[in-house]
Amino acid sequence: MSSPSDSPACDRVFTIDPVALKYGHGALSELGFEAIALGLRRIFLVTDRRLRSLPPVQTALASLQAAGCDVVIHEITQLEPTDDSFKTAAAAAKEANPDGYVSIGGGSVIDTAKAANLYATHPTGDFLDYVNPPIGGGKAIPGPLKPHLACPTTAGTGSETTAVAIFDLVGARVKTGISSKLLRPTKAIVDPTATYSAPAGVVACTGFDVLTHALESYTARPFTSRLRPDSPALRPPYQGANPWSDGGALRAIVLGGQYLERAVHDPADTEARDWLCFAATLAGLAFGNAGVHLPHAMSYSVAGLKHDHHAPGYQDEKAMIPHGLSVVINAPAVFRFTAVSDPMRHLRAAQALGADVEFDEDALDDAGEYLAQRLEEMMRATGIPNGLSALGYDHGDIPALVEGCWQQQRLLTLSPVEVSRADLAELYGAALHYWDDTPPAATAPAPAPRKKEKGKKRR
Amino acid sequence: MSSPSDSPACDRVFTIDPVALKYGHGALSELGFEAIALGLRRIFLVTDRRLRSLPPVQTALASLQAAGCDVVIHEITQLEPTDDSFKTAAAAAKEANPDGYVSIGGGSVIDTAKAANLYATHPTGDFLDYVNPPIGGGKAIPGPLKPHLACPTTAGTGSETTAVAIFDLVGARVKTGISSKLLRPTKAIVDPTATYSAPAGVVACTGFDVLTHALESYTARPFTSRLRPDSPALRPPYQGANPWSDGGALRAIVLGGQYLERAVHDPADTEARDWLCFAATLAGLAFGNAGVHLPHAMSYSVAGLKHDHHAPGYQDEKAMIPHGLSVVINAPAVFRFTAVSDPMRHLRAAQALGADVEFDEDALDDAGEYLAQRLEEMMRATGIPNGLSALGYDHGDIPALVEGCWQQQRLLTLSPVEVSRADLAELYGAALHYWDDTPPAATAPAPAPRKKEKGKKRR
Repeated sequence: MSSPSDSPACDRVFTIDPVALKYGHGALSELGFEAIALGLRRIFLVTDRRLRSLPPVQTALASLQAAGCDVVIHEITQLEPTDDSFKTAAAAAKEANPDGYVSIGGGSVIDTAKAANLYATHPTGDFLDYVNPPIGGGKAIPGPLKPHLACPTTAGTGSETTAVAIFDLVGARVKTGISSKLLRPTKAIVDPTATYSAPAGVVACTGFDVLTHALESYTARPFTSRLRPDSPALRPPYQGANPWSDGGALRAIVLGGQYLERAVHDPADTEARDWLCFAATLAGLAFGNAGVHLPHAMSYSVAGLKHDHHAPGYQDEKAMIPHGLSVVINAPAVFRFTAVSDPMRHLRAAQALGADVEFDEDALDDAGEYLAQRLEEMMRATGIPNGLSALGYDHGDIPALVEGCWQQQRLLTLSPVEVSRADLAELYGAALHYWDDTPPAATAPAPAPRKKEKGKKRR
Repeated sequence: MSSPSDSPACDRVFTIDPVALKYGHGALSELGFEAIALGLRRIFLVTDRRLRSLPPVQTALASLQAAGCDVVIHEITQLEPTDDSFKTAAAAAKEANPDGYVSIGGGSVIDTAKAANLYATHPTGDFLDYVNPPIGGGKAIPGPLKPHLACPTTAGTGSETTAVAIFDLVGARVKTGISSKLLRPTKAIVDPTATYSAPAGVVACTGFDVLTHALESYTARPFTSRLRPDSPALRPPYQGANPWSDGGALRAIVLGGQYLERAVHDPADTEARDWLCFAATLAGLAFGNAGVHLPHAMSYSVAGLKHDHHAPGYQDEKAMIPHGLSVVINAPAVFRFTAVSDPMRHLRAAQALGADVEFDEDALDDAGEYLAQRLEEMMRATGIPNGLSALGYDHGDIPALVEGCWQQQRLLTLSPVEVSRADLAELYGAALHYWDDTPPAATAPAPAPRKKEKGKKRR
């Protein structure tokens, strides 16, 4: 199958976890039906302040109320969740004592509902008990959570189908998370019209989150490169690239390449927004199954260390680095580095993304360049800052970035190329600045189409 | 999305039902682990006589016994299930009083386990109560069944992930089935090595079942062509083509086009068998979600009316028409007829299957021809009989074939072109004979490559 290893000691088995999903225009107006079907009468509904008065939440509330549900609303005020915001939500949920949960928002909102459900249903002495090691204790969740209907309003996160909740551990200045199959929402209700209110800046950042989910799932270490576990119970939830995840990932890459720029540039282009929303679902299912690797592992310290970037389109334009931006900013540097692990796979990804691949004798040697340059082209076209330096980082920050990243061993093990701290330092260095952004002199002729730098390699 | 209708009265929502799956070489050796994880100690295991002593069943039994499970084995003797064989299995299951079910075999075995689980868990006065209308009463199943682990040994059926059980209602000389989400197995355990013992004739018939599942899902009436139901509970389980099913279906078509002939011609070509097995899983998930249409609807009377065909490779070569053969034999006639509903979709399917499509101005007009001819080419290459006449049917049988087909309204409604009884008669007529099979005279020169008959249309 996908890059099989010939050693009989290697794993040859992967799993597909069950995910229930309702998708399409008007899906949110069926939320009351879905809640009643799960036997929910009293609901703890998590959303955010900006969304509270917008159509998706209004539609959802009307549907729940028409079905006779009693709804306690919890508005989050943080843009990205923290240990404190998780604790606040959990305390409110415990007080509300609901039959189940509904989340309507981006990844922050959905992850907050997962955490509130966990800590209200199975309280534990120390908040860090359930958090991923080495930062937390990695304690197993003792039993099922209450039902959770997750309704995304951004085409990005994929959190509605995944088994993780991510947050900023403020004291340690690091992002980390909680992972367990039990965190997976009972059902995802994906209504593309719920994404229509997202501003262009949000569409860009969340759209690149979709693309990196797909690209990282597709280029992750193959599932056959792991040793077969002593017990099936020890097979990791992030299994590595496999024939199942490859299909959804590659299709999401194609859709992202076709529709991301259109969705950013024209808020009224609902065809582009619809397909980007579908790509987010496909990419969420793919990375929930295969996992993500270096761009995501590197992102946590990028988002955690500096808080003076103002991302256009985000609530009150408060200083913070949106998740999708903190990920894609590493991606060109990473794919130049990982292409050597499977050049054909990187070349196929580049072509799927819309790169004009010339299949000459150098094509495989240039696979990483093709993919990285196509990503840079899309980043420039959608207003993504030019590397980490544009977010306020410089060479002096690299050791701290590396240390934060080094905590993400769960994701680093999925890199198709084994990485050392020195490799990470080199990758952060390469991600500081990507393209020449000197404005052309007023009298200069129009620039010639950018020439592919054939054979240019990172090292 | 896929061929959207602009009418606000049309449905714009589809669902993805949760399916749990374990896939890969060695998956069967983890069956004991899976059974214990579901709390099963006493198991009713359904298989067939031919398989009983072969490696898949031996591996499964060893794994269950090592895990401490107590196993009652039920061997089916019929090649295709009947109302009687379902009743026999249900009586044996009731007597065994197991915690759960395991099925190891083709679609007949897995469907028998579904029926045994249903009738032993929720006995009913009349066997026909749960059977699909208009033949049966369509009574709702009152509650969940016991856990069922389904392990396919053919790359075909897809039954391991679907919510139907098909059988021959002998007295009425018609095939019909039982449909309910509650019939879906708890988990599918798909081990491609379990398919290695299937003889070439079985690989051909089951492989075409895979291909028709995928082609019919992809060309079925789009989900947006139905009216939005008054309640979400009334949305049919077979929803019509949608962006989710399209992805898996198209990929299964590509894999079938690449690997079916190889798998038939060389039993030792495990790469081809592995990919065909994966295509079966993809196609099963696609048609379980979107549904199948005319080739399957027409197949039930084809398989039910005549019982004097001897299919090579099947148990004792008893007279019967294997399911996949009874389906694919209608397919070229059907796709010539349905292409007008969405020529581009039929053309894409033909290309995915390996047809050498010339994108000239006639290409869309010839879409049905491209697809039908590529299918005929594959049928000839794998020893599939030349139309219904080769199975013993002639023009005089058409009224009876049409009447049997007319009972399958559940599938006929998914046809992308509305069909009358007269249309069905014409389709059966067109399926009687496909290619010229006069052997060339000994002295004649080698035949020229077959020329595309451009513009040839059925009507």
